Parts: sequence; C-alpha cells; structure tokens
Amino acid sequence: MYVLDALPQTHSYSFEALELDCGRTFSPVTIAYETYGRLNAAKDNAILLLHALSGSAHAGFVNDKGEHGWWEDFIGPGRALDTDRYFVICSNFLGGCGGSTGPGSVDPATGRPYGLSFPVITVGDMVRAQKHLVDSLGIRALLAVVGGSIGGMQALQWAVDYPDAVKSAVILAAANRLSAQGIAFNEVGRQAIMADPFWQNGEYYGGTSPRTGLALARMIGHITYLSEESMHEKFGRALKGANGYHYRFSEDFEVESYLHYKGSRFVERFDANSYLYITKAMDYFDLPDLASIKSKTLIMSFSSDWLFPPAQLKSFVRTLRRKHKDVTYCDVQSSRGHDAFLLEVAPLTELISGFLENVAGPV
Amino acid sequence: MYVLDALPQTHSYSFEALELDCGRTFSPVTIAYETYGRLNAAKDNAILLLHALSGSAHAGFVNDKGEHGWWEDFIGPGRALDTDRYFVICSNFLGGCGGSTGPGSVDPATGRPYGLSFPVITVGDMVRAQKHLVDSLGIRALLAVVGGSIGGMQALQWAVDYPDAVKSAVILAAANRLSAQGIAFNEVGRQAIMADPFWQNGEYYGGTSPRTGLALARMIGHITYLSEESMHEKFGRALKGANGYHYRFSEDFEVESYLHYKGSRFVERFDANSYLYITKAMDYFDLPDLASIKSKTLIMSFSSDWLFPPAQLKSFVRTLRRKHKDVTYCDVQSSRGHDAFLLEVAPLTELISGFLENVAGPV
Repeated sequence: MYVLDALPQTHSYSFEALELDCGRTFSPVTIAYETYGRLNAAKDNAILLLHALSGSAHAGFVNDKGEHGWWEDFIGPGRALDTDRYFVICSNFLGGCGGSTGPGSVDPATGRPYGLSFPVITVGDMVRAQKHLVDSLGIRALLAVVGGSIGGMQALQWAVDYPDAVKSAVILAAANRLSAQGIAFNEVGRQAIMADPFWQNGEYYGGTSPRTGLALARMIGHITYLSEESMHEKFGRALKGANGYHYRFSEDFEVESYLHYKGSRFVERFDANSYLYITKAMDYFDLPDLASIKSKTLIMSFSSDWLFPPAQLKSFVRTLRRKHKDVTYCDVQSSRGHDAFLLEVAPLTELISGFLENVAGPV
Repeated sequence: MYVLDALPQTHSYSFEALELDCGRTFSPVTIAYETYGRLNAAKDNAILLLHALSGSAHAGFVNDKGEHGWWEDFIGPGRALDTDRYFVICSNFLGGCGGSTGPGSVDPATGRPYGLSFPVITVGDMVRAQKHLVDSLGIRALLAVVGGSIGGMQALQWAVDYPDAVKSAVILAAANRLSAQGIAFNEVGRQAIMADPFWQNGEYYGGTSPRTGLALARMIGHITYLSEESMHEKFGRALKGANGYHYRFSEDFEVESYLHYKGSRFVERFDANSYLYITKAMDYFDLPDLASIKSKTLIMSFSSDWLFPPAQLKSFVRTLRRKHKDVTYCDVQSSRGHDAFLLEVAPLTELISGFLENVAGPV
C-alpha cells in the first residue's frame, strides 16, 4: 500500500570543519541519513527525526537487508510522521556507529580508526552537525524536530540553538538535563566497557572488541529502559527450566536470560567506543537557559519511566511555561518504562499527528 | 556512659552437618557473632539481629579496631535495641566473609579455599545455621528477630521456619520475595565479577582478587540503595573540578567520584565470591506460604526505596493480614531510598522501641 516515495532512501553527507563545544575544530565529518516521503517545492514539510542511544538512521520501513526501522510503526502514509505529507529525515548522530563519523571511523591523518583520539562530543555538537546536513538540503526551517531519550535532548537543543529553523519540537521521555542517577548508570556502563581487557584503551579495532564489557553496559541500560512493573509483567520470577533452581551460577530466571540475550545481540551491531562517547554526551546535557526557544513544543513523559520520571518532565514543562513558551504536555499512562516512546504506538500517533497537523496547517 | 555489659563480645560457634536446601549436607560450619547486653536467667530477652549484604557481625559500638558498627546508633542503653534490657546477638551469615564459613573459607578436605565448590546456599540455609547458634546458647525462643534488606528476608524466614522460636519479627525494607528487577540488578553485578579476568572461576585466593568486577558490582548496588531524590540532593549535577567539563573519560561529576570511592572501599573488605553467593540467595528468596507464622510482626517500608518499593510491601502486608497475622506496618517517609533502614534513626527507634516493649511487656 506504500507509495514508492515513502520507501527509505539512504544517503550520506560530508563536510569539512565542525566547531565543537570542547574547543576543537573537527574535520572531516560524514553524516549518514535516510529519508522517507518527498520534500515539497517550498521545502517546508521536513521533519528531522532524532534517534536514541542504540538507534540509527534506519527509522522507517524494512530496508533491503530486511532490517526493521526503530520507529517503523510511526513512519508511513497515515502514520504519526505521515509520509504522504511530510518529508522525514533521520540521521545517525555524530559519534555513532551507523555510518556517521564516530570513534570507529578512520582518521584520514593516520589511516587508523580514531578510537579515543576522537573528541568528546556533546548533544550540541551532534545538532550542529545535523544543521550542516539540513542546510545542505536547502531547508531553511524544519516543520518539526522529533526525538525520544537522547533524541529528545537533541530536539530540545535544536529548538534552543536554532529557534528560527525549528517550527515545532516533539520531545519524548527527555528533559533539559540528565539526573545524577542517569549519570551514575552511564558511568557504571562506561566502567564496565573500560574494565574489559579487550578494550585496550579504545584501540581494539581490527582485533577482538570488548564484547563482555559492552554487553554488561547494555544489560545495565536495559534495566533502566524497562520499568519494575513491565519486568514484573514480562518475567516476574519465572524460571528458565522446569526443574526449579539450579544451585549454580548459571541462568535460573527468565529475566537473566532476557538480559544476556539483549547484551549479546547488542554487541553484534554496536561499537563500544561509541557507547562511551554517546553516554558522555548525555551526561553533559544540561540546558538551563531555554529563553531562545520559539517553536511550539509537544512534551511527553511516560508514567512508569524512571530514567526521565514524570515529576522531572513536569518541572521542565513548568519552567518553559513560566517563560511563556507554547508547550503541550502529556503524561502517557504506560507500564513500559522509558522504552514506552518506542512502543506506545496508538496514543503517541494520536498526539503527534494532531500536533503536527496543528503546526503544518490544513492540507 | 555505656555499661561494660553493653560492649561488644566477639565469638564464634562451630558445628558439624548443616542440611542445605540444595540437598547437600555441609560440614563443618563456623558462625561468627557478636553480642551486646546480657542474656537474662530466663533466657527470654534475646534479639537476633540480621545483617544486610555488606554487613557483618559487628553491628554495635566501635570495636577495638576502631570500626563502627553497621547499626551502631540503634544498639546501646536506651536505644532501639536497648542493651540495658535486651541481649542482642548479631551473626555473620553463612556464605559471608566476616568470620562465618563462606566460599573464602578453607575446605578441610583440600586445605584450600572452597571457591565455587562452596554450595549455593539460600536464605533458609543461613537461618538454619543461625538456629544452631541460638540453640547452642540455650535460647528456646527469641524475643525478636530484626533485619533489613536480606536481613529482613532472614527475619521473615525465621518467623516462617521456626514459629515457636520467634516471639516477634521486625522486617525492614524487605518483602517475601525479590522482584524481577532486583534479580536483574544482582545478575548484572555477578556478571561484572565473573567477567573480571582475575576472578579465575573463583580461584583467586592467594593471588589478585577481581577488584574491578567487585567494584563495578558494588557501584551498581549503590545506585539501587540510594533514591533518585537522595542522589539529586547529595550530588545533583555538581562537578568535581572548578573548570567545567573535562572532555575526557575521567570523572566529571561528584556522583561518579562517589561511586568510584564506594566501589574501591568495598573491595578492601569484601570477598567477590561471597558477593556471588549472597546475591544468589537473595534471588532465590521467595516465601509464598506464610501460614506457619505465629510471631507479632513489625514491617516497615521507606517511601523512596525502589528496590523494595512501598507498593510491594503493602501487598505483602495485605497477604499477611488476610491470613490473620498480627502485623504492624509503617511506610516511613524518607528520601534516602533503600539505605533508609540504616539511616533513619529517629523514626525507627521510636517504632522499634515501642514494638519491642509491647512484645517484652513492662520492665
């Protein structure tokens, strides 16, 4: 039923000289991206979709490798990001490992992967690189920037840094800073990676990668993405085998099995150094000054999200309202924790569709 | 001001043949314990205090090494466990590393530490070993069993397994089972230890111990013992240095520094294999059948505890009440998370003192 225009188009854009928050100028930069739908003649129907930690540019549809997009149910004709109407761009962020320049990319100066010589980047840097991409497409103002988790941080950073280039922002399961608890979990994940003897101070490319450390980091992350409630519903204390406890240090419970599976699958597709850089960018994210924002903003928390709890988002929304910003806020009732922004298709589709229609105006 | 009788007395008790839940009979067993106060002639003033994961038999007062007791503020004349009135026994549990038999103890059959040949034990096994100790002291019925976290699990197990030997039970920050989320955190901690190359399948004694893995496990644990609120109050996003972000993978934030400190201090005093065994015992803890309980029970949750959240404890209390058990329940308002049972001295002292007076009767 999908029109050809809606199918994913994979691209990359390269440019020289990106100014970074750390003070360095970095060069060259490549940003991998996919697009869905068609940019109209006025170039005013573009939506920039921003992915979370483990995401990539591949957001919509099943691609030619058979891979599902990370927000597939939200992209397409008639969906939240309606490809009959909007031109959706999703770029892999700077520092990632999905085609954009990151610590695993080859440094042209040495002919070897950057590793830890890659600069420590911020969400601001990621957004600055995306601005180059958007400019290259001739888009003066995005109809919307949309993202969840660190994608939501990027959406907010866009609204703050480029108020004239952002008509609206949709921020899901994110606020204007990461909490101390969030920093703590990220740091333990990083320590797990750096403690892996195969990490080799980040110079493992071409050899064995720090799989065990990265899997551990991912397992910690997964606990924070689910809620206590969803873990209880999904697994409870269900045992893996039929014969009761093993009285060994092997997997006894389904929840252990699930975490091991998630950890081992992640290391097949993700670079450990990227994990370090991305979590550091999350930790550094802190935008107290929201005065510059001009966009309409839709903010959603999820009732069981304990990484970005509703109380924190409500306080963020109050801050915006005190500054007379145009904010729509909804706390979506969900047992699915932080991951709800990927899973609660029906309520999100309704809220986002309505919001975008309001921004874009009648067809 | 403390009477001599109240000062800690350090002892150990050894016995042969402990039946374990795994089916093995284990021998020999030594249980290290301290006592505070004096056992009366009727031997009916004894309180068994049960420690949490990282605790030891040293619960009260400062000992001759200058070490503070883990529940020091609760033990002494006029305190919650009033040593003018009660005889307090605190034993290091089976599987621990504070003087009781555990994986680091020497197996008399081989002359070498048990390591992973130590049997996987349960909270029931810990309690069965404690029963041997209590019997050896000629105590027929304990006035109270008192504990928090896995100590609270033990208190409950006592009430279920030895209803005639327990007049009352005080259960803090624990319920009748560990949640899926609790199991998940424990498993990640164990994986961190077992991934440390120095772990050597548990045979590291006499060599380098898996310090990095154990520190990681402790860091994960610490995040779960604090609340988001207390982390925010204690650290927020405060930076370690005065010069802003480092743009390196070193500590930027106070909260990182705190976790590293807690991790590195823990490895000085704790055995990694004991960590594996104790967390497994917690995971296995599941007491659906509470019918046998005869004791009066005082149960306390802490409003910001997310390892044993008030909702779980309320459900546990309801289960007991439906079985017509004599339960007093209080949700103590505290921002200090799971650790509140160690820290909220004033409200706990009032509640526990009153409860014990009610059980013991007038002086």
